Amino acid sequence: MSTTSDDQAQTQREQALTDKVVASFANTPDDRLREILQAATRHLHAFVREVRLTEQEWEAGIAYLTAVGDITDDKRQEFILLSDTFGVSMQTITMNNQARGNATEATVFGPFFVQDSPEIDNGGDISGAATGMPCYVEGTVRGTDGQPVPGARIEAWEADDDGLYDVQYDDGRVGGRAHLFSDERGEYRFWAVQPTPYPIPYDGPVGQLLAAAERTPMRASHLHFMVTADGKRRLVTHIFVRGDSHLETDSVFGVKDSLVLDFDEQPAGTPTPDGRPVDGPWSRVRFDIVLADDLAG
Amino acid sequence: MSTTSDDQAQTQREQALTDKVVASFANTPDDRLREILQAATRHLHAFVREVRLTEQEWEAGIAYLTAVGDITDDKRQEFILLSDTFGVSMQTITMNNQARGNATEATVFGPFFVQDSPEIDNGGDISGAATGMPCYVEGTVRGTDGQPVPGARIEAWEADDDGLYDVQYDDGRVGGRAHLFSDERGEYRFWAVQPTPYPIPYDGPVGQLLAAAERTPMRASHLHFMVTADGKRRLVTHIFVRGDSHLETDSVFGVKDSLVLDFDEQPAGTPTPDGRPVDGPWSRVRFDIVLADDLAG
Repeated sequence: MSTTSDDQAQTQREQALTDKVVASFANTPDDRLREILQAATRHLHAFVREVRLTEQEWEAGIAYLTAVGDITDDKRQEFILLSDTFGVSMQTITMNNQARGNATEATVFGPFFVQDSPEIDNGGDISGAATGMPCYVEGTVRGTDGQPVPGARIEAWEADDDGLYDVQYDDGRVGGRAHLFSDERGEYRFWAVQPTPYPIPYDGPVGQLLAAAERTPMRASHLHFMVTADGKRRLVTHIFVRGDSHLETDSVFGVKDSLVLDFDEQPAGTPTPDGRPVDGPWSRVRFDIVLADDLAG
Repeated sequence: MSTTSDDQAQTQREQALTDKVVASFANTPDDRLREILQAATRHLHAFVREVRLTEQEWEAGIAYLTAVGDITDDKRQEFILLSDTFGVSMQTITMNNQARGNATEATVFGPFFVQDSPEIDNGGDISGAATGMPCYVEGTVRGTDGQPVPGARIEAWEADDDGLYDVQYDDGRVGGRAHLFSDERGEYRFWAVQPTPYPIPYDGPVGQLLAAAERTPMRASHLHFMVTADGKRRLVTHIFVRGDSHLETDSVFGVKDSLVLDFDEQPAGTPTPDGRPVDGPWSRVRFDIVLADDLAG
């Protein structure tokens, strides 16, 4: 029974409501908060109006967010997983680490970084309690001007070959994480374990959503880096294993082409770069790091 | 140091990420769920890109949603309050109850409706345990064709003059709620208490947000109605008190001009319409209800 003029009146009524909510935030004293609240209002309303959200669907949405809240506690952060799987975390990273020249690209931080990791010498081993195939990692840290960066602090962390980080065990073990410093020529090298794929926690609402969308919870195999140096922008990134079957479907959209590297597998008995004896096969990867200048300083 | 070509590359990189997340939902078997997930992705990304959300702000957003989840339990629904105060609830109601001809407008349902309210005779009193100035409510239920609707079920509910609904007390009281039926001429009348303003719960994250925006948590004084009749669309609405100081700033955006009515105050001693003796002043309001046809049937 609705007529064109009814429809026009309806569109006006909906827009007037959106405008009224936007106006309700006009007195927010903090300029930035006001900008964010008003933009959030416009985009939220645009979403519900575009899909013509039904009252039942609104109820389902409320119930979904409630479930996300219910499973979240000190150890489990389902809101971050939700942000990750909608690519919102990665978009935030992408915006705040705009490419500058040939600087190494950033990717998601992830929940498994730990302050005060063990310090190792350049050439040492970050594996600790983590099991897996040995992997030799080396590279040079440079600025975008091509000059080596000595004394850069390199934090590296990764899961073991069961797909778990040390902090996911209850026994207090430390493994698959350490920090070291680049040498006077900007070079670094360390032993780690070959990264393997693992799922994000998928026994909660985010896992249900991924299942309903027929998306995988798996992350592509990766090794985390955080690199800091005086006068340089902090770099938080991963390196990924070329050939990994999850590169295209990484559940948090962390993969960038420039971060996919060759982890060359070496047959058992191949001599190691530093003469260290290794039983069985091992792998090696070269990751040359380029730090952008810190423009904030 | 960023150049125009750097900026263009950045825009492309951000759009490519949005596109990739949208594409990740392409295999969702349920058509409607796919539509909603893809639209949510586009609008979420448009929001974070428009405001250039910083990593710190992203962290604050995650912490905020976590706090909303923390306070939510069986009795407190902070996600609904959040939806209400961003006008998302009201927009959903507005979309799903499109005006048809002169049908009475809908507004938010609110959290205080109770199934199985007491039944009263036409002309009875819904006040029960609720205190307040007596208020006589009357009107006629009609279709959009002007024909009276006999036997319409009218649910009415409201807060007492302390601004609390019966279910907000711990003592199991029943008051300020009942249902009755329109008579053979579509007419109804009942005694209630004069509605007074009250705040939505503001001791949680939503209250903090309202305070930061210098918005009031107060709702304009109102009396809830839910009206159902065979062949008619269910009407969920309120009536508001003309002259109330919170009409323009109702914290959940529930007020519509057509729902603001004259509650005429009567001096002590004024004879009542039904001869009922009343001590002190009382008020009266006329609310003629027009039900749209049910097109879903």
